[in-house]
Amino acid sequence: MLKASAVWHDLQQIRLESPLVHNITNYVAMNTTANALLAVGASPVMAHAIEEVEEMAALARAVVLNLGTLSPPWIDAMVKAGMKAKQLGRPVILDPVGCGATRFRTTSAKRLLLEVSPSIIRGNASEIMSLVQADGAPKGVDSTHGSEDGLKAAKILAERYHCVVTVSGAVDLVVGQGGLARISNGHPLMPKVTGLGCTATALTGAFAAVNPSLTAAAAHAMAVMGIAGELAAERSPGPGSFQVHFLDALHQLQEADVVQRLRAS
Amino acid sequence: MLKASAVWHDLQQIRLESPLVHNITNYVAMNTTANALLAVGASPVMAHAIEEVEEMAALARAVVLNLGTLSPPWIDAMVKAGMKAKQLGRPVILDPVGCGATRFRTTSAKRLLLEVSPSIIRGNASEIMSLVQADGAPKGVDSTHGSEDGLKAAKILAERYHCVVTVSGAVDLVVGQGGLARISNGHPLMPKVTGLGCTATALTGAFAAVNPSLTAAAAHAMAVMGIAGELAAERSPGPGSFQVHFLDALHQLQEADVVQRLRAS
Amino acid sequence: MLKASAVWHDLQQIRLESPLVHNITNYVAMNTTANALLAVGASPVMAHAIEEVEEMAALARAVVLNLGTLSPPWIDAMVKAGMKAKQLGRPVILDPVGCGATRFRTTSAKRLLLEVSPSIIRGNASEIMSLVQADGAPKGVDSTHGSEDGLKAAKILAERYHCVVTVSGAVDLVVGQGGLARISNGHPLMPKVTGLGCTATALTGAFAAVNPSLTAAAAHAMAVMGIAGELAAERSPGPGSFQVHFLDALHQLQEADVVQRLRAS
Repeated sequence: MLKASAVWHDLQQIRLESPLVHNITNYVAMNTTANALLAVGASPVMAHAIEEVEEMAALARAVVLNLGTLSPPWIDAMVKAGMKAKQLGRPVILDPVGCGATRFRTTSAKRLLLEVSPSIIRGNASEIMSLVQADGAPKGVDSTHGSEDGLKAAKILAERYHCVVTVSGAVDLVVGQGGLARISNGHPLMPKVTGLGCTATALTGAFAAVNPSLTAAAAHAMAVMGIAGELAAERSPGPGSFQVHFLDALHQLQEADVVQRLRAS
Repeated sequence: MLKASAVWHDLQQIRLESPLVHNITNYVAMNTTANALLAVGASPVMAHAIEEVEEMAALARAVVLNLGTLSPPWIDAMVKAGMKAKQLGRPVILDPVGCGATRFRTTSAKRLLLEVSPSIIRGNASEIMSLVQADGAPKGVDSTHGSEDGLKAAKILAERYHCVVTVSGAVDLVVGQGGLARISNGHPLMPKVTGLGCTATALTGAFAAVNPSLTAAAAHAMAVMGIAGELAAERSPGPGSFQVHFLDALHQLQEADVVQRLRAS
Repeated sequence: MLKASAVWHDLQQIRLESPLVHNITNYVAMNTTANALLAVGASPVMAHAIEEVEEMAALARAVVLNLGTLSPPWIDAMVKAGMKAKQLGRPVILDPVGCGATRFRTTSAKRLLLEVSPSIIRGNASEIMSLVQADGAPKGVDSTHGSEDGLKAAKILAERYHCVVTVSGAVDLVVGQGGLARISNGHPLMPKVTGLGCTATALTGAFAAVNPSLTAAAAHAMAVMGIAGELAAERSPGPGSFQVHFLDALHQLQEADVVQRLRAS
């Protein structure tokens, strides 16, 4: 289902249009995701004050909401920004980081589901499972399940909330109205770097800003993540150098890289 | 107007004296600016609680206020820290990140102008223009204007608030009572890294801590930013490796680098 | 006293068990410490909302509390998380960043000492001295004393609060019921990188999660910090590349590195 030419087309559009992506995200990944958005060609802005999030969301072509280091005023701001973006017809991407680990995380994620109705949700299997059932509790913020375990939950979630759901893992799954995509790119070094899940969510925002097909946008973002991750890992003896080469790879990614490396169905 | 020997002199003083620079800055750039201050030879401290900012500002030789991820309690703390520093005769540097993008940003920046009366303001052209007029709205936090567009606004601002104004861009402009400096160092890769504007502001704090001529301090900081940026970019295939080499370049910068590379008038 | 085989044993246990370490830490070092914990083999989680810290602490095998960018709600959350962990018999590690620089920092650190009774305290000499006496005021967050100056204060602190105290510096001292360890590993480039003290504290959490002897855990963590720091510094022209190589070194550390490089008594 996934075509390298379509992935490449979106990437070119991002580089050409440099869409503004408004992020309300966590302290750990804020710098990392801003740099990844810049490296892929988008224009990031981070703003969380309730006094300005509606105005900022209205300027942006996509809004990314991430629960990583959540607290009540940040959740309130996420609701406001998300509702404004939806009202203007812009895509909203939700990353329910650590959902299931504490009641506050699960409650906050479900509040965002109900009040904002995100366009795309991206999480690991444990997080996605905890949004629809009781037994998906992750270990802290890392998944205790493989992505295929999350498939059933993703399908329920996609249907219940009329959204696209990405379950990331060794194989990334994207479940949407356009069907199911499986992306097998990536590298085992990637989970050894903090914030790469958050980066996947942020890049999903950039792709959703330029591609009105949300299923395709979500899948293309995961493909670019995985391919850049492979290119970076091949040059990296460890997670420190991986981060450096990952940003370089996003910045330098060529059509041939996508064509030769895409492993998806 | 700008002499390499004067730039080098200030850099040596920073390395020798390791001045404490107190930053109330944004979540995205906090780590980056702390590392840049260390790499240039200064001693950074980040502290934002209203309970301690006056004491911390009183310990520091310069105070840097940055609106990047502003919220009301942080602005209140910036006012307190800024007023204390001014009262003690220490330089206060303001970075009005994203000013013009939302009313809250513009209002907060103007509050800081009036209540603190910063010694130096550093922003991109859109930010500087939005401080004096209505038509400078940036796209998120990135400028939609070149630095020369900001020159008129910078002159108005410098006169109105008796301060030095740096407009950064492909060419950096520094407007102060000592006249106008233009620094043409730098590299196109620099805007692809988040927080480099914030880093320029933080380094301006370090230079203002050792040089009582604020116009010279602001210009010397931009020269060192641009020269270190060139050295880094020449070794960097993308924005990931640029960040690494930029900190190394700040740490290693030699007199010959400044003498050979300075392009300023 | 310190054996390379025991250091290596703990490191293997961390890589095998991947213990969850719950951090309530500062904005500057959050990303850095999360990456260091991942690189050493642990599983980090950052969560600070009062609504969830007890649940998160209960999931974790160690809790790390760091005052770097403190504010009242964060201190309240640290107290809650710390008390829950202690109640469950889990180690709590305190990093009193900048203690002594402002009254708010000193008061907050002492509140944590009294209400949480941390298992291990790690700071520089000025910070440790300011916890027991009045004349240890640091310059901002950097120490103005060598670690040996902090030895007397560390002994008082360890006895008064029945805890282990690490004083880090060119030589790291670990004072506990198991006696005194001196670790001489490390490199002069390390203080030129922000957040490495915070990283030492976070790694201490990972070691305390797998080794019930807190004195040994604290000493082993400092040994691994110092050895990884040496390996990184030998490949690094400056603090930018140091950070990259440091994470790589933590990830790649071999038994031979520990055996050949450990300099401790």
